[in-house]
Amino acid sequence: MMAVDAAVATAGIRRGPGRPRDEDIDGQIIAATLALIDADEDLTVSRIVARGGVSRAALYRRWPSLTALVAAALDVGRTVPPPVDAEGDLREAIVGSLLGDTAAATSGYSEARFRHRIRLVMADRTLQKAYWSSHVSRRRMPVEAALRRGMEGGILRGDLDAEACFDAIAGTVYYQLVVRGDFFDEPATRARVAAAVDVIWRGMLA
Amino acid sequence: MMAVDAAVATAGIRRGPGRPRDEDIDGQIIAATLALIDADEDLTVSRIVARGGVSRAALYRRWPSLTALVAAALDVGRTVPPPVDAEGDLREAIVGSLLGDTAAATSGYSEARFRHRIRLVMADRTLQKAYWSSHVSRRRMPVEAALRRGMEGGILRGDLDAEACFDAIAGTVYYQLVVRGDFFDEPATRARVAAAVDVIWRGMLA
Repeated sequence: MMAVDAAVATAGIRRGPGRPRDEDIDGQIIAATLALIDADEDLTVSRIVARGGVSRAALYRRWPSLTALVAAALDVGRTVPPPVDAEGDLREAIVGSLLGDTAAATSGYSEARFRHRIRLVMADRTLQKAYWSSHVSRRRMPVEAALRRGMEGGILRGDLDAEACFDAIAGTVYYQLVVRGDFFDEPATRARVAAAVDVIWRGMLA
Repeated sequence: MMAVDAAVATAGIRRGPGRPRDEDIDGQIIAATLALIDADEDLTVSRIVARGGVSRAALYRRWPSLTALVAAALDVGRTVPPPVDAEGDLREAIVGSLLGDTAAATSGYSEARFRHRIRLVMADRTLQKAYWSSHVSRRRMPVEAALRRGMEGGILRGDLDAEACFDAIAGTVYYQLVVRGDFFDEPATRARVAAAVDVIWRGMLA
C-alpha cells in the first residue's frame, strides 16, 4: 500500500517524457463519454471523469461545458467532407458527397450511435443547437459551396436557396431512419431516396 | 378505512348503469400512458395500470401489447386528414394538407410531445415500426392518393414515386425539427421549407 502511494506521489510530481500527452487525455475523456452514451447511462461530468480517470479541471480545460463535450463525442468518426469536385458531373459530385456522408453516419456499427444521437438531441435542445453549429453545419459547407457554384455557373437555377435544397435531400434520408425506421442500406430505402433525389435535382436545374 | 374498503368492494362487484363505460376505461389508460410519457418516466404495464386505476386484463383486452398502446397514445389528437380536394389548385391542396398535418403534430403544446415521440421511437424500433404501420402510413394516404390522381391527370409526371415525393416534403420539415432544432412556426423555418417545396414541386411537374 505504501509502495503504491509512493508511486502515485512520484507520478504526480513527475514531469517530462512520462507525463500523459494532451491528446491521450482528450481521447480518454471522449472514450469515457462514448462508453456512457453506448451504455445508455446518464451523462454527467462526475461519471465521465470517474470513468476516464481524469480530473474535472482536465475536462473543463478542454471543453467549456458538458454539452460541448457530448457534441464532440457524438461527432467522433465524422469529418468535414473534402471540397466537391465540380469539374465532372455536378449532380453526381454533390449527391455523392451528401449521401456518402449521411451513409457514413448511419450505416453499420454507427447506426446504433446515430439513433442515440437523435435521442440525446431531442431531449436537449441546447445540445441540439450546439451540435448543429459546431458540427453539422460545418459538414454541410462543401456541398452548399458546390450548389452555389452550380447556380453561378448556370447549371442550377440562380434563385435557389442552397440550404433549403440541402435540407430536402438530407431530410429525405432522415425521414427513412427517423420516421419509417428503415435502414439506409436496404435496397427499397435506397430506391426511394434515389427517386426523391431525381425529383429534387430536376427542380433545381436551370 | 373499513368504509372505503367496503365501497371499493361494492364498486368491484357492481354491474349495470354505474359500471364504467368502455370508452371511459380507454381514456383512463391512454391518459395514464400520456402522463407517464410527459413526465419522462419509464413506460411499463404495471405503472400504467397503477396510474390509470384499471386492471392489466382491461388493458390487454384493448391493446395486444404495451407497444401498441404507446403507439396509440402517441397519436392522440391526430387524425387521418380528409381526402384532398383535387378540384382547385392541386399544389395548394396537397402541400396544404401535408404541411398542415405536420404543423398540427409539431407546434404549440404538442411540440414537447413530438420531441418525446422521436426519442421513444429511436430507442425502440419495434415501437417505431408499429407507429409507422398503424398511424403514420395511414395518415399519408389522402396526400398519396392526390399525388397519384395528379399523375393520372397529367399535371404531375407519370413516372413519379408518390411515396418518395411525400418523403421529400415531410423529410424537409422533419430535418428542421430533428437536425436543426428549429421550431416549425418560425418565419425563417417556414421560408426554408417553402423554398424546398418550390424545388420539389417543380421537379414533380409533368
